[in-house]
Formats: sequence, structure tokens, C-alpha cells
Amino acid sequence: MAKGEETKQRIIEQSAPVFNRLGYGNTAMSDLMDATGLGKGGIYRHFESKEELACEVFDYACRTSGEERFAGIKPDDSGLEKIEKFVVGFANFKSRLSGGCPIFNAAVEHDDGNPVLKKKARAAYEGFVSKIATFVDEAKASGQVKKSVSSEKVAAFIVCSIEGALIARRLMGDQDILLMQSQMIMNYVKSL
Amino acid sequence: MAKGEETKQRIIEQSAPVFNRLGYGNTAMSDLMDATGLGKGGIYRHFESKEELACEVFDYACRTSGEERFAGIKPDDSGLEKIEKFVVGFANFKSRLSGGCPIFNAAVEHDDGNPVLKKKARAAYEGFVSKIATFVDEAKASGQVKKSVSSEKVAAFIVCSIEGALIARRLMGDQDILLMQSQMIMNYVKSL
Repeated sequence: MAKGEETKQRIIEQSAPVFNRLGYGNTAMSDLMDATGLGKGGIYRHFESKEELACEVFDYACRTSGEERFAGIKPDDSGLEKIEKFVVGFANFKSRLSGGCPIFNAAVEHDDGNPVLKKKARAAYEGFVSKIATFVDEAKASGQVKKSVSSEKVAAFIVCSIEGALIARRLMGDQDILLMQSQMIMNYVKSL
Repeated sequence: MAKGEETKQRIIEQSAPVFNRLGYGNTAMSDLMDATGLGKGGIYRHFESKEELACEVFDYACRTSGEERFAGIKPDDSGLEKIEKFVVGFANFKSRLSGGCPIFNAAVEHDDGNPVLKKKARAAYEGFVSKIATFVDEAKASGQVKKSVSSEKVAAFIVCSIEGALIARRLMGDQDILLMQSQMIMNYVKSL
């Protein structure tokens, strides 16, 4: 990797927890300078604007947390096992990236902030739900879940329910909220 | 109401949608001046700091959305009816307050922002869950829901699941996300 590319990548990695914790719109240039140890000019040499950096950071954050969240899942696992590994893993796991789920963090930002980021967040949400929907499809194909349920609906239910609990955990600082939520979600999915 | 009190109340009401939409920490004094038509001095005459105003706005926003969200529920309704009116109402309803749920909006803000607000948001979350838990208690007492389920767990499940969908709706601009989520939640609660 060329030196310029290396620096660019380092800026993205060091800025990611800052954007994710403070909010993509709320992060100030001074926060990014603190995190990277670079001056304003050093950052702008690699990114045209703070918004461009925010978008690159968002892509990186989604890749990182996506890899982490689906890490334990094996192709041979049954559909229900994949869902359970995802849901229970989600509740127990500590991300390398502080600040929670980048998709939902971007979702709660106000609309007029960064339209490119909003578009990326929408695509990431859809991709996230589609991925879980393939697990539900597999569970349906092997008779673990009734064929009559909608995979997309169940997948959206899982994503929204676990993400809501993630935010409540953040507010209350109580890990049990996530653990209980993951149990309830799995009880429900198994009853389908 | 004395004139000073009236102005103070007007500042709170006009600032509420701004704080709730832009974020409690992210709202600038200039946003509040635009919303109220007052100068900085006019606002600071009534509030010691932006943080104090944010806290008063949060209390007002919670009161307003709490009243709205529980408005259709009658004391004579059964426990399950109360839960259903809350969940289905949540999905369908348009608040006077733009920007979503003040509790979850405050929850996603970063921790070092406003510790008094954080404390208020925690108490509001607990109050919200406790209120729904009393509906589950009633449903248990009348045999609509098994006695063995934990009212607090079910209540937290309902709150987290519907709030997660509210955020996804905000991201995707798709009301169906909330409608489907409310159906799934009610299916689950009825199966308990």
C-alpha cells in the first residue's frame, strides 16, 4: 500500500470510533484532529470534506461490525442455528468499534445532515435485513419455521427488536436488557 | 400565569421539536433563537444554560408524548386491550412533537453530553417500562397471559422492539416497518 493510502486508511480507522460515538453529524473537526494527531490540512489532504470522511468511515464501520456480528456463523449451520448465533452473539458481543451499531447511529441523525450518508445507511439496513432473511429462508426450507411466515418480516422484526434493545442498553448501562431481549426474540422465532 | 412564566413556557414549547429533531446535544443556540424569535439574552433570562433548557424541554417532550401514547386507553380496558391500544397506536400515530421518541433520542446521545439529561432519560425509560408492565400484570391477573411470564421482561421487550422499529421507520421513511412490527409484537404477546 502506498504511503498516502496507508495514511488515509489510518485516518478512517482512528476516526471511526469518534464518529460512531459522537454521531456522524455531531463530530467536529477538532475531535478528528485529536483522534488522528493530524492537523486540519493533514486530514483534508486525503478527504475533500468532513462529510466525505464520514461516509468512508461509515462504510468501514459497517464492514467491521458486519464481519464481527456474523463471524461465528458457519455455512453448514441450520437456518435456526444461524439466527440464534446472530441474535445471541449480538447480545453478548463486544465490538472493536465503540459507540454501537453504525446503521442505527446514522438512522437517528437528523435528515438534513448528510444525504450521501443517509443513502448509505438505508442500503446498509436493507442489506442487513436481507442477510437475516436468508437465514429465515433456510429455516423455512428445512421445516424449522412455518413456510407461511414472511422471511423479510421476521428478519426486520429481529433487526429492529435487537437494535432497540441495544439503544436501551446504552441508556441504562444494563447488559441484561440485551440478554433478555435476545431470549424473547429467539422464543418467538422458535414458535413460528 | 405571570408574563415571565408564559414566555418561559413558550420557549420550552417552541424549542422542543428542535431539540428532539436535531438532538439534545447537537442543537445550537442559533437554532433555538430561530425557533423562538428571541435573542440569546432573551433565552438566558429564563434558563441558566442551554443544558437547563434541554432538560426542561425533555420533561415537556416526555409529558406530551406520554399523554399522546396512552391517550386512547381506558381504565376499564382489559390488560391485553391496553397493550394492544398502546402498540397499535404507537405504530399509527402522528405526534405533535416531531423527531421521534424523546427518550430514545436522548439515549443515543453520547454520554459526556449532559449528565442531568441522561439521568432524566433513564428515569423516563424505567417509568415507561413500568407503565407497560402494569398492563401485563392486568393481563396476567385476568388469565389473558400466563402467570409465569415476567411482566417487566415483556414490557421491556415491547418498548425496545417498538422503539427499534421507530428508528428504522425514520431511516427508511417506510411506515410499514412500524405496522408490521406492531403486528409481530402483538402476535407474540398473545402467544404468551
